[in-house]
Amino acid sequence: MVKVVSFALISIAAAISTVAALDPVGQFKRLGACPTLGCVFPPDRAEFIAGAHFDVRVEVHAENDAKPNTNYSLTIQKVSKHAKALDFSKWSKVKPNAQESWDFTYNKDAAAYWKTMEGDKNAATPVHVASTAWRKVQIKEPGTYKVILKYNNGKTTEAIWTVNPVTKRKAKNVILFIGDGMTTAMITAARLISQPHISGKYQKHLNMDKFPVLGHIMTHSLDSLITDSANSASAYNTGHKSSAGALGVYPDSSKTPFDDPRQELIAELLRRRSKKNGGAGGVGIVTTAEVQDATPAAVYAHTRDRDQKSTIVDQMIHGANPVVADVILGGGGKYFHSKIGGKSLNGTDYYAAYSKERGYKVVNDRTQLLKYKGKDPLLGIFHSTNMDVWLDRNVYKNNLLLSASDPTGATEKPALDQPNLDEMVVKGLEVLDKRHRKEGWFMMAEAASVDKMMHPLDYDRALADLLELDKSIGKTKEWLKKNKLDKDTLILVTADHAHSFDVYGSVDTQYFNSFSDDSEGELEKKNSIGTYENSGWPSYVDANGDGFPDEWKVRYTLAAGTAAFPSHREDFQISINGTRVPAVYQSSSHHHYKVYEANPKDDPHGINKPGTMSVNEQVGVHSLQDVPIFASGPGSHLFAGIQDNTEIFHKIAEVLGLGEQA
Amino acid sequence: MVKVVSFALISIAAAISTVAALDPVGQFKRLGACPTLGCVFPPDRAEFIAGAHFDVRVEVHAENDAKPNTNYSLTIQKVSKHAKALDFSKWSKVKPNAQESWDFTYNKDAAAYWKTMEGDKNAATPVHVASTAWRKVQIKEPGTYKVILKYNNGKTTEAIWTVNPVTKRKAKNVILFIGDGMTTAMITAARLISQPHISGKYQKHLNMDKFPVLGHIMTHSLDSLITDSANSASAYNTGHKSSAGALGVYPDSSKTPFDDPRQELIAELLRRRSKKNGGAGGVGIVTTAEVQDATPAAVYAHTRDRDQKSTIVDQMIHGANPVVADVILGGGGKYFHSKIGGKSLNGTDYYAAYSKERGYKVVNDRTQLLKYKGKDPLLGIFHSTNMDVWLDRNVYKNNLLLSASDPTGATEKPALDQPNLDEMVVKGLEVLDKRHRKEGWFMMAEAASVDKMMHPLDYDRALADLLELDKSIGKTKEWLKKNKLDKDTLILVTADHAHSFDVYGSVDTQYFNSFSDDSEGELEKKNSIGTYENSGWPSYVDANGDGFPDEWKVRYTLAAGTAAFPSHREDFQISINGTRVPAVYQSSSHHHYKVYEANPKDDPHGINKPGTMSVNEQVGVHSLQDVPIFASGPGSHLFAGIQDNTEIFHKIAEVLGLGEQA
Repeated sequence: MVKVVSFALISIAAAISTVAALDPVGQFKRLGACPTLGCVFPPDRAEFIAGAHFDVRVEVHAENDAKPNTNYSLTIQKVSKHAKALDFSKWSKVKPNAQESWDFTYNKDAAAYWKTMEGDKNAATPVHVASTAWRKVQIKEPGTYKVILKYNNGKTTEAIWTVNPVTKRKAKNVILFIGDGMTTAMITAARLISQPHISGKYQKHLNMDKFPVLGHIMTHSLDSLITDSANSASAYNTGHKSSAGALGVYPDSSKTPFDDPRQELIAELLRRRSKKNGGAGGVGIVTTAEVQDATPAAVYAHTRDRDQKSTIVDQMIHGANPVVADVILGGGGKYFHSKIGGKSLNGTDYYAAYSKERGYKVVNDRTQLLKYKGKDPLLGIFHSTNMDVWLDRNVYKNNLLLSASDPTGATEKPALDQPNLDEMVVKGLEVLDKRHRKEGWFMMAEAASVDKMMHPLDYDRALADLLELDKSIGKTKEWLKKNKLDKDTLILVTADHAHSFDVYGSVDTQYFNSFSDDSEGELEKKNSIGTYENSGWPSYVDANGDGFPDEWKVRYTLAAGTAAFPSHREDFQISINGTRVPAVYQSSSHHHYKVYEANPKDDPHGINKPGTMSVNEQVGVHSLQDVPIFASGPGSHLFAGIQDNTEIFHKIAEVLGLGEQA
Repeated sequence: MVKVVSFALISIAAAISTVAALDPVGQFKRLGACPTLGCVFPPDRAEFIAGAHFDVRVEVHAENDAKPNTNYSLTIQKVSKHAKALDFSKWSKVKPNAQESWDFTYNKDAAAYWKTMEGDKNAATPVHVASTAWRKVQIKEPGTYKVILKYNNGKTTEAIWTVNPVTKRKAKNVILFIGDGMTTAMITAARLISQPHISGKYQKHLNMDKFPVLGHIMTHSLDSLITDSANSASAYNTGHKSSAGALGVYPDSSKTPFDDPRQELIAELLRRRSKKNGGAGGVGIVTTAEVQDATPAAVYAHTRDRDQKSTIVDQMIHGANPVVADVILGGGGKYFHSKIGGKSLNGTDYYAAYSKERGYKVVNDRTQLLKYKGKDPLLGIFHSTNMDVWLDRNVYKNNLLLSASDPTGATEKPALDQPNLDEMVVKGLEVLDKRHRKEGWFMMAEAASVDKMMHPLDYDRALADLLELDKSIGKTKEWLKKNKLDKDTLILVTADHAHSFDVYGSVDTQYFNSFSDDSEGELEKKNSIGTYENSGWPSYVDANGDGFPDEWKVRYTLAAGTAAFPSHREDFQISINGTRVPAVYQSSSHHHYKVYEANPKDDPHGINKPGTMSVNEQVGVHSLQDVPIFASGPGSHLFAGIQDNTEIFHKIAEVLGLGEQA
């Protein structure tokens, strides 16, 4: 952290007159990053790379019967340069949009929230808003700026903005691997079930274990201690924290999810960066989720609402400054067409649109993918929604038959020919290399279902997808070396947030399964759990050397769990016939909100675990702990030690030389 | 990891003829590191620093009615040097002890174990043993050695040993801070409750956050996936993994806990290392636990059984090669005397013995400690058992009155004048500097009650002690800088193992406390837990800047938990009147082993959490995840990335130049 440019902020803070307003205490808020009635976006402590484009919005709020004062002003002052504050419009040379106004409501606390959930229309607090926006502002001069909103006859909201200087480009290419929801505990567990050990010492290691540089990332949201995947991935792609569900924007309080103040993305910067830096670089997006899902969408989309998936597909090629990635591989077919089960925007055939308007080669199965040797941009969509997980793709293949997942919508058949993540990654590298070997490229590759399987407590499926990620990292290192790009390419492996998973021993499932389901049997079942010296070693062995356990249904399994779970039953054994569904909606509840209880069909002989969360949560939730980041290659030293998630953007921007300084 | 000497092992393994026997699957074992009937200690894949002393033992086992063959032999062969195997006694020039024999029993699996627990004397398997030991072996020539035990007419057990070469000394002093049981998740939570943030970005950081180098440590035992504190601390001090409860030895199967094959300790090596390296260095031990507790005892003791605390006190000054540390600060008075509640060995007054025989200055409270400015070695014992925790020492001081903790045994009064960890650490530095400024020193300083409070799920007390550790790190950095030792001193901050703690949101305790204790009330209480955007920010604020929250009983607390817990109730609010006792022994159980159930007096209005472990576990247990290590100062680069716990010893030995090469 010592070396990081952005921490200059801390010492600067003392030098400026603003009395810092710390984040407000409490669960509910009127609007994120807006502790007072006057709101400035980007908010206090925002950081920018020199020359990045961004929108500015101010909002003035009035609660209940009060009306917002529409006579407000915004000024900016560069600390230790300008003697006084300057009118923001004049200084930025950007004309604001016409003043807008709207209303919204919010809950002041849990008591109000649950009354609202029960249908009480008076529990929420109404808010009336006046607002002004400036679009596409740009600051090329590094330094510290004080931005002041004056409103309500003398009230002020101050925001300190820092613009970081441009440094020398350090690498030609950057690959950002994201194990969604992946923690150190999961990596430890995945290593244990896949790597050989003698006298407790590993004789082989995971590929990520071999990276020379390790860091930790702090993942808080703009306005809460726990993040979701959208605003965390957005922080990596923009350098700005945001609120749950937001991609490439600061959420304002207006109704539409498409007018929120934007932040420029790595991919956008790479596309428009000056010719001096080597021309527009390549962009690759690979995921096992829908390509419109939060983490991949954060590479190319701008919206407050990650669920606007049909529009997100459209933004890739029709947005204001569309990214038009060179490589797009993953699931999410149903947002590309309007055939069986399809939900494309306005019924458009986006496969055809991508192909005709932007020259994409479109592939819809593994066979077509591996066959492609061309130089055109590549769109590969292999599933109607999220791709199936490694265990179902490779071991329990009958589970693929459970859904009509044809990505084209032409049939109601399942997608049986899905590629593995490592195959998608290597194909992505080939295409990027063909198209942008000279200029360089940025690729984001996501193992999405580490998270998607942790949510329903399906640890086997999550760990298998983590091992698939690790295999992809190994294949990437091989490919880079073979193609003489290893010395030009920074590889990062990280996660966007955590789950509270850990292993605390082993389970003798033979002993566990020998007892009845009554209370005495439940007590005896628990005695199958060995801790400390009696944890011994589980039965997983990778004798065939493919990086995965040879058998997943074994006698000695992991005693694993989380701190945050819905009511469920747990038998510590793999769910062979498909993903776990730990909790189900209890329709007999007298509450208006959904109450979830243990699913009687999930681990029916398992021990009883009453939930530890709000009863309308049906799966496990994200957790607080810092996530690891592994770095290898040029610029990797920047990622050592503890850092904020927004710093990842700034460091990648530094490594790729994306700034544009005055 | 790439840079680490010890990983040479992996490539060497391929070059030698041994077919590696992977660790055996299953919870129970006859004897750790002994998968066959012929056992060799040190076992397969042991590593040594050149010139270290160690004992060797072989055992030949026979189960049930069989008898062990007493006609066995041990040979050694240096790979790529010796053409054939050499007789071990001749080669080592060490005469073995006379052959011994004994019997013991073990349980083959959980079914046998619980039958034994219920009193079935035929459930365990009897084993008959023949054994030979070689004491104080030394190998000064670096390289790979193959050791072969031949037994039972043709059976063999092979062990590969690696002796690492000596490298140049890199630092004069090393401080090893251990937050016992401290994980990344706990650090994240401690940062959240203590450091100011604006728009989700920290404006200040923990002292450990600022360290430039970060690594992760794999903590498996020799013979199980989950370690205890003894064998993990032992790995740091010896470079050898061991089994639960063992300190500085490989546990054999004999009855006495004092004859097990020994490994040489950092402190012993430092004391006897060659004059060329600067003479015998200083040793400091600081802990908030009993100074005989596992982590501090691992610095100076040798025994298979960490509970032999009276003998451990004796070993410090009367052991075979006694460490006689320059500084010993912590709790554990009752093992020093035989007065009220005292348990000293043979009734000896060890305060007097330390003072008279070794010249120690003895202090028993904070006032005496801070006053001491002398140059004599310092023994400071401030509590009869473990010292009270930071929250009770500094905030809820009435809890100190709950126990008769006078460390001298002279009264039945409580120890009210206990120092804080940072005060002990700084005093320890002063004494070490006075005594060994020229030669350098090694200090281990432990925040023991991170672990001791995580066990009973008392997260507030655990996090406060983590913050006290962090304060001690800050004070150490200040002291080193002021005394011009910062460039000569490597600082390491790590843990010995994990607990499965994490935070998954916040709790509105005002809302929580408004509901009744019936089933509908329990449902509503859970709805006080906010996740994702509704986690918001908790109420903890450090306005006075002392590094700790100003108030601990607040409205918005952390929604925290673990994966491994006994049956208990949880209200997410600080236990003001003393440490939590989550579960109590249910004497009405018909089982012969103890069955623990939720303590009706602990969090009586909390939500119900049935246990997730064997029912004879009364508190939470350790977990699997890799623990972080933060490094700063000369040699710190060695600790980047992923490493085994045994490597910590080898790296410290490398930094301090402790080897003695032929």
